[in-house]
Amino acid sequence: MSEKFYDVIIVGGAAAGLSAAIYTSRQGLKTLVVTKDIGGQALLASHIENYPGFKSINGFELMQIFYQQAESFGAEFVYEEVKEVGEINGKFYVKTINDTYNSQTLILAFGKTPREMGVPNESKFIGKGLSYCATCDGPLFKNKIVAVVGFGDLAMDAALLLANIANKVYLIIPSDKLIGDEDLVNKCMSEKKITLIPNSEVIEVKGEKRVESLVLKNTKTSTINELKIDGVFVELGYTTKTDFIKGFVKMNELGEIIVDKNQATSRAGVFAAGDVTDTPFKQLVISAGDGAKAGLAAYNYIQRLRGKPIKKADWRKLSK
Amino acid sequence: MSEKFYDVIIVGGAAAGLSAAIYTSRQGLKTLVVTKDIGGQALLASHIENYPGFKSINGFELMQIFYQQAESFGAEFVYEEVKEVGEINGKFYVKTINDTYNSQTLILAFGKTPREMGVPNESKFIGKGLSYCATCDGPLFKNKIVAVVGFGDLAMDAALLLANIANKVYLIIPSDKLIGDEDLVNKCMSEKKITLIPNSEVIEVKGEKRVESLVLKNTKTSTINELKIDGVFVELGYTTKTDFIKGFVKMNELGEIIVDKNQATSRAGVFAAGDVTDTPFKQLVISAGDGAKAGLAAYNYIQRLRGKPIKKADWRKLSK
Repeated sequence: MSEKFYDVIIVGGAAAGLSAAIYTSRQGLKTLVVTKDIGGQALLASHIENYPGFKSINGFELMQIFYQQAESFGAEFVYEEVKEVGEINGKFYVKTINDTYNSQTLILAFGKTPREMGVPNESKFIGKGLSYCATCDGPLFKNKIVAVVGFGDLAMDAALLLANIANKVYLIIPSDKLIGDEDLVNKCMSEKKITLIPNSEVIEVKGEKRVESLVLKNTKTSTINELKIDGVFVELGYTTKTDFIKGFVKMNELGEIIVDKNQATSRAGVFAAGDVTDTPFKQLVISAGDGAKAGLAAYNYIQRLRGKPIKKADWRKLSK
Repeated sequence: MSEKFYDVIIVGGAAAGLSAAIYTSRQGLKTLVVTKDIGGQALLASHIENYPGFKSINGFELMQIFYQQAESFGAEFVYEEVKEVGEINGKFYVKTINDTYNSQTLILAFGKTPREMGVPNESKFIGKGLSYCATCDGPLFKNKIVAVVGFGDLAMDAALLLANIANKVYLIIPSDKLIGDEDLVNKCMSEKKITLIPNSEVIEVKGEKRVESLVLKNTKTSTINELKIDGVFVELGYTTKTDFIKGFVKMNELGEIIVDKNQATSRAGVFAAGDVTDTPFKQLVISAGDGAKAGLAAYNYIQRLRGKPIKKADWRKLSK
């Protein structure tokens, strides 16, 4: 059991969470970031050219700088998945498998999570031949045989990227032909390293220590086949995993946390930012800006509790 | 009379306006930025360490990158002060002294403007010995005699900065002693190059081609004095100059433009972002994030007019 009490716990370590951490820790708030990884979906972007300040940067590199800034101001990090959050007597708790952390305010910024196939052995092989991020892990499969499971532009993007690295790429799709951006479809069809496996779904991942094969079912004929591979990339898009905060803060019909324009949620002391919120624009700089807002809103909330609210005119000075 | 018709006109060329321009021009919208300068208040910051992505950068340098990104995507720039904006038949016009520009949407992002002393000859000497930005123009006054007119932390900051450059710094304040951050007060009092002139206000700026002296009035005795100087720095803070949009969009009691959380103003087709809005947090990354939102909201507005609204799920793809 953790004995430390934090001013702010931030759930999530991607653009929004890290930006919030930069702001809260720089304001002298005792800050803990609880996250599974650093960078989130930004890691998927190999070439970002619309984050103001960088003509071109890759997502991993940019997220590392965010992280280093937050850490240099004193933010602490634990790498755990959050299982439960709640409030007792105006204080918040955040439970992971290992520990419980307590705080005065909470910032929810855990973004979106890759959608899983939901088949046996899937989670067992994560990092052992199974990946949700071709950009991140593709380079590990040089001259190997890999499969991409998915549909649409995301899956085609991944297959083309992997065709530059691997020896052979199976593209497993549920429909009878590729659907999506015409240019991508043509590129995939003319790329000799890519073999399309249409009308198919994965029903099991097999292997000993690492992924060795996929069990495929033909959706038309119900035939079962086993496909030998060295790696599999799951490209089914992203989903908001907000089950653990159901009833804790108000969400919209898409399961996104509803925030006001200062990033406050329906519960006092709880703020949210980034892709987990109902903001329609999912962009890195927008997550960073809203993360900063959430951080300053949490700071102001604590100052109010301490009887020292920030005057509007003083906001600018705050983080000079 | 300009004959070009733009998809978007952005009024203001600082963090919010430039970020908006990056997004609109990257989406292929014909974009014009009308601004007096590039960078606005960010130019005052010599050392920014809370813009996520940079451990330390000066404001001028950061704003130049924003500008180059917007320009590389095709945004056009004119350096003029806006005198009037309006709407005719669902289209907008923006009037400057020189020209009139027309557009389908408008993004207001002109930030705040330095507060003037409001005395004779003030505007005549801007750039000729009179400045509103010690960080920007201080280096031009090496070994010279300068005055700082102001009060509070802003004026003390400027005086201390100038004491490193100039030979002598007069600090002209309306009160009988320095008020503000204790540390700054002590530093100013112990700095030999700084001479405090309390209970005083400037009533005129004098000179031929450049500033040569200030006419000062003692607020207690009403005595008039003339003070010879080579330069004067006006440090009276910032104000929102929203007179020219009065009645055009709704503003709050502080003269700030009221926006919803997607940066829409009270008038359809008009968006706003940055320090000109009622967002309480005035920070560079927040202006950049909200500028991006305004840009994407303008894009969506135009797509709707063209019968091609953006589906929520497609937002992420937009600026890939």
